[in-house]
Formats: sequence, C-alpha cells, structure tokens
Amino acid sequence: MADQNLKPFFDKVDDLAQSFIDDRLTPAVKIPSVSSAPKPEDRQKVFDMTDFLQRQLEGLGAAVTTHDLGDQPKTNESDPTLHLPDVITAQYPKNRDPNKKAILIYGHYDVQPGGDGWTHEPFDVKEENGKLYGRGTTDDKGPVLAWLNALQAHKEADVDVPVNILFCLEGMEESGSIGFSDFVSKNKDLFANVDAACISDNYWLTTRKPCLTYGLRGINYFTMTITNNGPALHSGMFGGVVHEPLTDLSILLSKLVDSKGKVLIRDIDANVAPLTDQEEADLKGIDFTMDDFKKSIKCDAAIYNDKVDTLKHRWRFPSLSIHGIIGGDSTPNQTTSIAPTVSAKFSIRTVPNMTGDEVNSKVTLYLQQEFAKLKSRNNLSIQAMDEPPAFWLAKPDDANFTAARKATEKVYNKTPDNTREGGSIGVTLDFQQVLGEKSLMLLPVGTSDDGAHGPDENIPRENYINGTKLLGTYWHYIAESSF
Amino acid sequence: MADQNLKPFFDKVDDLAQSFIDDRLTPAVKIPSVSSAPKPEDRQKVFDMTDFLQRQLEGLGAAVTTHDLGDQPKTNESDPTLHLPDVITAQYPKNRDPNKKAILIYGHYDVQPGGDGWTHEPFDVKEENGKLYGRGTTDDKGPVLAWLNALQAHKEADVDVPVNILFCLEGMEESGSIGFSDFVSKNKDLFANVDAACISDNYWLTTRKPCLTYGLRGINYFTMTITNNGPALHSGMFGGVVHEPLTDLSILLSKLVDSKGKVLIRDIDANVAPLTDQEEADLKGIDFTMDDFKKSIKCDAAIYNDKVDTLKHRWRFPSLSIHGIIGGDSTPNQTTSIAPTVSAKFSIRTVPNMTGDEVNSKVTLYLQQEFAKLKSRNNLSIQAMDEPPAFWLAKPDDANFTAARKATEKVYNKTPDNTREGGSIGVTLDFQQVLGEKSLMLLPVGTSDDGAHGPDENIPRENYINGTKLLGTYWHYIAESSF
Repeated sequence: MADQNLKPFFDKVDDLAQSFIDDRLTPAVKIPSVSSAPKPEDRQKVFDMTDFLQRQLEGLGAAVTTHDLGDQPKTNESDPTLHLPDVITAQYPKNRDPNKKAILIYGHYDVQPGGDGWTHEPFDVKEENGKLYGRGTTDDKGPVLAWLNALQAHKEADVDVPVNILFCLEGMEESGSIGFSDFVSKNKDLFANVDAACISDNYWLTTRKPCLTYGLRGINYFTMTITNNGPALHSGMFGGVVHEPLTDLSILLSKLVDSKGKVLIRDIDANVAPLTDQEEADLKGIDFTMDDFKKSIKCDAAIYNDKVDTLKHRWRFPSLSIHGIIGGDSTPNQTTSIAPTVSAKFSIRTVPNMTGDEVNSKVTLYLQQEFAKLKSRNNLSIQAMDEPPAFWLAKPDDANFTAARKATEKVYNKTPDNTREGGSIGVTLDFQQVLGEKSLMLLPVGTSDDGAHGPDENIPRENYINGTKLLGTYWHYIAESSF
Repeated sequence: MADQNLKPFFDKVDDLAQSFIDDRLTPAVKIPSVSSAPKPEDRQKVFDMTDFLQRQLEGLGAAVTTHDLGDQPKTNESDPTLHLPDVITAQYPKNRDPNKKAILIYGHYDVQPGGDGWTHEPFDVKEENGKLYGRGTTDDKGPVLAWLNALQAHKEADVDVPVNILFCLEGMEESGSIGFSDFVSKNKDLFANVDAACISDNYWLTTRKPCLTYGLRGINYFTMTITNNGPALHSGMFGGVVHEPLTDLSILLSKLVDSKGKVLIRDIDANVAPLTDQEEADLKGIDFTMDDFKKSIKCDAAIYNDKVDTLKHRWRFPSLSIHGIIGGDSTPNQTTSIAPTVSAKFSIRTVPNMTGDEVNSKVTLYLQQEFAKLKSRNNLSIQAMDEPPAFWLAKPDDANFTAARKATEKVYNKTPDNTREGGSIGVTLDFQQVLGEKSLMLLPVGTSDDGAHGPDENIPRENYINGTKLLGTYWHYIAESSF
C-alpha cells in the first residue's frame, strides 16, 4: 500500500520546501534560457540550463545522456549559426529495476523572453503573497524541478522510488520544439520500454481545482495570398478600375468565420463527433464559472454567457482565427497605395474526428470556389501546412489517469476535473506516436492565473510544494496499479 | 500677334537645349532634395535645392523672397528637429508691369527617395534612347526648370516676356506639403493680383498626346479600429469562444466595396452628378486605349475591357481602396495569437458633387450599423479626416485653358485632350481657395510613362525641350487673350 511511504515523503518535502525554492528554483530561474533569442550569446544561456539540469540529475543519482540535435535551421541566410540545445534523457535508477513499472516524464527547460510589463525581476525568484514570481516558475522550470524535488525528498526520507523513471527534457519547446519530433522518432527504442508517460506542462482550468488533461485540439495553419503580379498602384490613379488584392482578401476572409465563431467553410464539421449526453453532463460538472472565464480573457469579448457552451467551443468544437495580414501598409500613416500582393494567416483548431488532410482540402476548395465567384483578375494561392498536428484524445479512466487521480485526492483532498485544452502541444503527439496504445497524460502543477508567457509569470508556492508531493505520489499509485 | 515673337524664342530654346540639360537639369538632379528623409543632414539637401533655385531665379532677374515655414511638426517625440524648407516666391519682372496680365506658377523642388530597382544612377542625369533619366526629371524639377528655361530663352532671344510671373515653389510636396496650405492662406494678398494660375506637376494620359487637366477627385481617409480592450489571446485556448477583432474587421471590410470596385456604402453616390451624353462623347474622343491602361498598371487586374468605362471610373466616379491593416502579426511566421486591437485604413475618392462631410457621415453611420448587426462584444471606432480634400473641377473652355490649348497646338501641332485625374493634389485646392473664380489649370510636361516616384524616373528629352517651348508660348497666348 502506497500510504505508509507517503507520510515520510510528505514530511521531507515540507522540510525541504524552502530549499526547493532557494537552492533549485531560484538558480534555475536566474539562467535566462530563452530559446527564441537570436544571438549566439543568448543561446549559451540555454546551454547553461542544460548543464544545470545535468548536474542536478546526476547529483540525484540518475544516469544522464545528452543528445546533440545539430544546428538550428536558419530562417534567413544572414542569421547567425545557432546550435540546438541538447535533449536530456535521464534514467533513475541508473540500472532499471525490472520489477518496477517505467514512467516517461517530459518537461522543457527553455523559457519565453522576459518581455515588458513585469513588476518583478523576470529572471529571479521573488515570493510575494504566496506566489513565486519569475520567468519559468510555472512554464516549465517549476514543474520540471518539482519532479527533481520529489526524487530528492524520496532519497532523503529514505523512501524507495517505486518506479523506473525516464526523464526527457527539451530546450526548444518555446520555439516550436525544433528538432524534437525527429529526435523522438529516431529514438523510438529509448521510449519502447516505458509503461506510461506523464507531461506536466499545462495548467489547472481555474485557481481552485486540480485537473487531469486528456484532450487537445489539433491545428491546421493556412496562408492565403492574393496578388496582381504587378507593382503597387496609386489609388488615386487606379482606384475603381483595378481589382484590388486587399479588397479580394477581405471578402474571402469574411467568408471563413462569423463574428460568433461559427466556421463557414462548407462541410468543415461533417466529421466532428456528436456531443454525447454524457459529455454534456461531464462538462456541467466541471468546476468552472463564466467569472473564471472573463477573468482569464481580461476583457468583455466572451461569445457565450454559459459555462457549458464556452467549454464545448473551447475543447470540443473547431474554431478559426485570423492571425494577421502580410502586405499593405501597416504603419499609422495615411498612405494611399494599392498593395500588389497581400496574404492572410489563419488557423483552424481541429477536434475528433476531423483529419488534417480533409481540413486542408476543404479549406482550399472552398476558398477557390469563393474566389471564383468574385470574377477577379487577381490570383489566389493557398499554402496549407503539411501533416498538420492532429487533435489528441486519451482515456481519462485508464490506469495512468487513475493513479494521478488518486494522487491528487491524496495531496489536495479533491477529485480532479478531467479537462481538455483548446490548444495543441506538439510533443504530446510525438510521444503518443511512439507510445502507441500506452497511456500518456497531462498532469498540471500550475494554475490558470500563473501568467505563463506574460509579465509577472508565477507559480503559487503551494502549487510548487504540493505539486512536488503530487508528482511523487503519482509514482506510488502507478506502482500499485495493475496494467 | 504672338507668332512673330515665337520663332526667335523657339530657335533660342533649340540653341540652348543641351545647356538646359547640362547646366540646369543635371546640377538640380544631383541635389538629392528628398523631403521625406528623416535626418537633419538629408534635410540640408532640400535647403541646398532652395539655394540653387534662388540663385537661378535671381540670375534670370527675378525678385526672390524666401518664406520661413518654421519647424516640421514631429511624428514621434524622439524624432530629430527638422526645419521646413522655405517656400520660394519670385516676381518677374522685379517690378510688376501694370499693362501685362499676371500668372501664378507653382512647382515643387523636393523629390521622392531614390529607392530600389534603378538601372541608372538616381541622382544624376543620364540621357539614353531619347530619355533623360534621374530622380525629379519629370516630378517636378524638370517642369519647374522648363519655366526657367523659357525665361532664359526669352531674355537671350531678346523677346519680351509678355506677362508678369509670380513663381511659388515648394520643398515639401512629396511629404504632404506640410505647412504649405497654411502658407497660402496666410499670404492671400501675395496671390490676390494674379489673373490666372498654372501648375505643371502632372502627366500626359499617354506618351503620345499632350493634355490639359481640369479635374481631380477628392479623398476622404478613414481608420477603423476594432478592439476587445484586452490583451492578446491564445487562439488555442480562446478560439471559438471570444469575438475576435480581426474577424469583425474582415467582415466590415467586406461590406465596403466589392471586387469590381462598386462602393457598397449606403447612398454614397446619391450626390454624384449624372454623366451627361456630352461627357460620354468627350470620353470617347480621348486618345487612350486599353493597351495604354494595361501598360500603366503593369498587370492584368483591369476591371473593365472598355476605355470609356475605365476613364469614367477613374475620373468621374467614386472609388474605395483598403490600404492596410494595423495590428495582428504581419510576419511570415505561423503565429497563433488573437490580436486585441486591429485597424484598417481605407480611402474614398470623391467626385462632383459629393462633399467631404457627407461622405464622413455616411461611412461612419454605415459601418456602425453593419457592426451592430454582428452583435459583437468588441468595440468599433472610426476616425475620419477633418476637412478632407474635395474634388476640384475647372472649366476647360476658359481663357486660361484656351491659351494653353493654343500653345500646345503651336508647339506640338496637336489639340490637347481635356483630361481629369483620379488623384488629389492638395495645392490645387489651396490655390483655388485663394484664387476664387480665377482660373487654375494643370498643364503637364511629362508623359504617362515617365515613372514618377518609381525607379528609372525620366522625362523624354523632347518633352523637356518642347515643354520649355510650350510653357513660354502659353505666356504669349495668355497675354493676347481677353479676360
């Protein structure tokens, strides 16, 4: 039974809590491992973070391997050459215990840039009103270090770690996980022997209630371009007598989605699985309010007044967003040119059972047909993403999720909500691909209010410390489950 | 009779032709008087051009006054302080001859930046295949200097200049004529005693046929902004559950104008004067072909297949162009943010008898109504231009135009077409305002193919030299006309 080992583990976590902050989280946050920074000297900071984690993991007795991913492909010829940060894998114990299950744990050690708007120092940890402020505290250094904390507390409390752990830690997640997908598929064998996997890199739906996340939407990304294949024209001389690319583009954009978020592309939802009564009931049971939602969007633009409608359209139905226009004059000046070539970028979030290829075909055909109706002499081209990231859907009642549920109940005395997310997390798909039927779970440590990516990113001290307990406890319930 | 004086004038122009190129046009083009250049050292070049013209005019015996317009208003606090170039006025002869009519002549001595794509040196004159290449050769240094050439040739041929001339030369035209409108209205008295005015700062409709220009469209400029008053949102988390500003903006833009250029704003053309049979017949008579048009737009985006339709919609009917979108991500990256605030810039070209205020009201009301239909929780605001430049329409059969028509017939042996332009020229309205009922005319020297503002700007040598004859001959027909 797990419980007898948990008390000494919990006590040790409480003993070490301040050290987990001062001696592990603080030095980690002080390394500005910003993977999107363009200069070689900035990239060095990411490498410094690789070294930091390697030392930490080795200090805890893990067998660490660093995997060279080579140079980063350049966007422009003139960019400096940047080497990709290594992927770290670490096995604990060094020699796999064949009598224990094996769990794959993913996290990332790079962070978003500091950015504007902070009231704290971004690259230092400051505790205030129960929150630990600093870039990476919740995304994703805090959760990664919580796994390490759990390991340390087990060792110092002399509690056996009841599973084999395979850490896989990446340094490019905030920059599109460049090279990681290839790494995973080329190193299938490394992941072949794990029994289940867990990623702690998302957030509770609220600030109140822990959750387990079992679904993600996919994404298809499009760039649509309209050109007259000529030069910029003066609108005084030619306004009214030429088909204007930006006019045509605006008309096509207006055919994609309405103001209430309904995607207008013909048959786009033909393969969307109907919402079952059970799903509707489950959504009603989620601890989430429209006040939570309004707080999260920080404005009054909510389409729905109802929680269930909001969650449905966020997790369960496709959506379409227009992200920007390329071309035309985006300065505030009162210029009067007719731009010769304009593009719009938009994405569609996909849900079961839409497929990426089907969505690409439907969007392309629909836009071509709508453009033909304009009888414009401009040219339309549509660039769709090859192999778009698909939706991901796990089974929240399997042994992996059940273990995490029990761990949550133990630590938080609350049954976690089963949640989905509207976004896409590429590594989830990469791992699910090599895991096949084995269970992958998203187990968040931070909360909806932590401001990941924004200014004043933080993690509640309680979540960092209870998260350490949660992740360690999860190992015990995994160990005693039968799968 | 004018003719007896014209032969010695024409002969002298022919004698001096190479000198007009080498000793006047070439040194002028070598001064890169780019008024839009942001640095004080660049602005000095504009001042150098002021000095050049002052010396030239004084050398020809004119009484020159330079008018200080003060500092240029800054767009950003951090911009360096730039002094506006002086407006030059010059009276020839120094003492006005009360027995002669007085003509106001406007031109500008600043130019567009060099820019990319030149096969010649932008700031030098190179003659090739009958064309004089160089920035400003046709816009507007060439025409300005043609007036000076005409003056020189009269003097050297000992032919009396039969009119009083008041030159008014500006150095900020390519940058929105900053300060000029104020200058004109504050110096009304200076222009009170002229009998007519002539501006040579536009182009023939083709490369074949001279023309006189008697009409311009006006312009109303709008910036429409939609905001959620919140932060950027992640489209994964919030796509489908918030009203997206760029979606709303795209829908509104699609309501403005169709692909064939029809402006969709309710009642926008209520005050457009009906096209008369005479106007239709006049348009048919214009020497202009669809091949000319296609050559000018350098692409296949013409809406109409017919010359008369094309000219009508270019000169005689309103048009609407969308110039750019502010906000959203205009990089080529596959970003996925929902932009919180987006704006679109668009303009409407106006024609008799639309008024600026009426157009502002109609557009604002229409967009507010269309936006209300969306039932979006975002906010719409519309910024319209105060006192938008109106259309301008002269009488092409008045004495001023008749004099220019006779001069054109004399020099080119062709009756010029009466043309209009689709664009707006601010100074035309400024001068017409102070001239009241007195006639203002646009008398182009360059051709449709000169590439003003583009790379390889040029003026045909023939147009520079015959233009010199045309402008001088115009004085003689003005002198003998009775008005």
